[in-house]
Amino acid sequence: GALGGLGLGLWRRRQQAAMAASEEDEAEKKEEEELRQRFMAPPVSGLRELRRRRRELRSRMELLIMETQGEVCRALAALDPGASFAVDTWERKEGGGGISCVLQDGEVFEKAGVNVSVVSGLLSEEAARQMRSRGKSLKAKDGKLPFCAMGVSSVIHPKNPHVPTMHFNYRYFEIEEADGTKQWWFGGGTDLTPTYLNEEDAVHFHKTLKEACDKHDLKLYPKYKKWCDDYFYIKHRGERRGIGGIFFDDMDSPSKEEVFQFVKSCAKAVVPCYIPIVKRHCHDSFTPEEKLWQQLRRGRYVEFNLVYDRGTKFGLLTPGSRIESILMSLPLTARWEYMHTPPESSKEAEILEVLRNPKDWVH
Amino acid sequence: GALGGLGLGLWRRRQQAAMAASEEDEAEKKEEEELRQRFMAPPVSGLRELRRRRRELRSRMELLIMETQGEVCRALAALDPGASFAVDTWERKEGGGGISCVLQDGEVFEKAGVNVSVVSGLLSEEAARQMRSRGKSLKAKDGKLPFCAMGVSSVIHPKNPHVPTMHFNYRYFEIEEADGTKQWWFGGGTDLTPTYLNEEDAVHFHKTLKEACDKHDLKLYPKYKKWCDDYFYIKHRGERRGIGGIFFDDMDSPSKEEVFQFVKSCAKAVVPCYIPIVKRHCHDSFTPEEKLWQQLRRGRYVEFNLVYDRGTKFGLLTPGSRIESILMSLPLTARWEYMHTPPESSKEAEILEVLRNPKDWVH
Repeated sequence: GALGGLGLGLWRRRQQAAMAASEEDEAEKKEEEELRQRFMAPPVSGLRELRRRRRELRSRMELLIMETQGEVCRALAALDPGASFAVDTWERKEGGGGISCVLQDGEVFEKAGVNVSVVSGLLSEEAARQMRSRGKSLKAKDGKLPFCAMGVSSVIHPKNPHVPTMHFNYRYFEIEEADGTKQWWFGGGTDLTPTYLNEEDAVHFHKTLKEACDKHDLKLYPKYKKWCDDYFYIKHRGERRGIGGIFFDDMDSPSKEEVFQFVKSCAKAVVPCYIPIVKRHCHDSFTPEEKLWQQLRRGRYVEFNLVYDRGTKFGLLTPGSRIESILMSLPLTARWEYMHTPPESSKEAEILEVLRNPKDWVH
Repeated sequence: GALGGLGLGLWRRRQQAAMAASEEDEAEKKEEEELRQRFMAPPVSGLRELRRRRRELRSRMELLIMETQGEVCRALAALDPGASFAVDTWERKEGGGGISCVLQDGEVFEKAGVNVSVVSGLLSEEAARQMRSRGKSLKAKDGKLPFCAMGVSSVIHPKNPHVPTMHFNYRYFEIEEADGTKQWWFGGGTDLTPTYLNEEDAVHFHKTLKEACDKHDLKLYPKYKKWCDDYFYIKHRGERRGIGGIFFDDMDSPSKEEVFQFVKSCAKAVVPCYIPIVKRHCHDSFTPEEKLWQQLRRGRYVEFNLVYDRGTKFGLLTPGSRIESILMSLPLTARWEYMHTPPESSKEAEILEVLRNPKDWVH
């Protein structure tokens, strides 16, 4: 009886444990299946590894950037049914890799790229120098600084000159110093580059970003809106690249968790701030002159990205970086005319005025 | 008799002097008229001032760059009869100015710019830093370095993909140090960027440059040919911009006169090395695919100029520089496709091979 009872109890507990484990397996498999459908490709670190260290911020951030990539690609593809995203996964010899999704020469989009990268290794001398020049004190061990960097970045160039170009980027950085302490920070932003000014679109875009920021701290939107106007400045032209949005870097307070939640809100705002604008204008009629002005503005986009953009310059200087993924931000086509000046009071002069003197779109 | 004789002698001598002076005036006027016809605009320093200091090298160099500008513009315009050069003269607030000649959207040329600039003033901190990093010891007086810089520079982008893009630049620099001594040097070069490889053209181009160099020193061509291949390197692509030519900088020996004569030979070689190639191919038929490949190569041209070219970067960083003249080197149109790779053994792969592994075209 006692033995039998013990035997039965043991058998039951074992059976329950086995059932629980198989339920857990089941749940895990289901979750994995779901993620697989939401992601454009398996994550760089692998689903199993991400589950193992699920509580670490770098794992949660990798899932967030993967999810953002999937969300944005699906939303864009839905608007351009004839076209589809080419998905390339790549590895970096020095550690890590990425997933590049590019839709090229569609009906609605001239070139739309959404890129995820998760890289790790030792910081190059040049990269460390650039970070120190931004005020970071990085104490290296034998001159070596192990780092881990990940992010999602995207540039969407539509065909129709009445649909603006959009760019966003959200990233996370960790560096291990000589004494084992880790420095970490987040950076990112979302900004809009219209060929022609449409005030309603500008207000919608900025308002959506402001709402995402305001959930966390009312000080964030005004600060990051200004930072965006300052960052995307084409100095030699005296113009901004576009009508802005938000931009921030080196964000490491109030806490890792709170900054992550803020970045998550921003990433979730990408689709609602941009997709309605594309829908509204992707069937607008346009003239050859409007297309020409778009091409000239594309030229300025190239100037900013190749001459000033820190991310692009960093990428071009970093050994082992994937050039095609870095330069997918460039438009399919661009134009430079000598001494092109739009007539006064034209629609072309109207947008130039706003690029020279940024406006506040929401109060 | 004696008095009369004396009077007559004096009168005659006066008359002869007056005749000589008027002959000299006449000759000067004629020379001025001739120069006016050969130049695209009056020189920055003024003809009178250039005549006053005619023996100084900076005056002779200014006449040479003006003459080169005129020669090249006339040769190009003769090939594109429907189009004409817009001539803009501009002044620099800080001292000096320039003459920009641009032919845009012609039958033969998409964009052809020939720019002269003659500027002087005080060297900026940034410029001095860059020069010191090249090994120059510049001793400043109260932190100030008076300088004078002049040059002619040009980029010619033809429409037909079988006509290569050509670039040249010849320049002279003088800096006055604290103790009053002057540092001086010449720089320059001429190089070719074809969309497709044509060996005959490549050999003609390099041979003409080699002959110009060989008149002065047999060591020059091999040295400057290699320097050109090294300089026009798009590091992030692992390709050169084109099939080279010659490039040199900081040239200050054997003597000012000899270097000037060498630079003069190079400048005189521009028309004979390039114009025959344009003539040979400007009516070649081409396919839409060939035009597309040209546009992609134009994109690489933009990448080199905005990311690496020292002159462009220097110009964009220099306060008061004329942006339109600096960026006239950019093509009218360019294209970037994600992951474009020409098929093996194609004509596109053939030129890529030469851009990756430069060849010797003359021995």
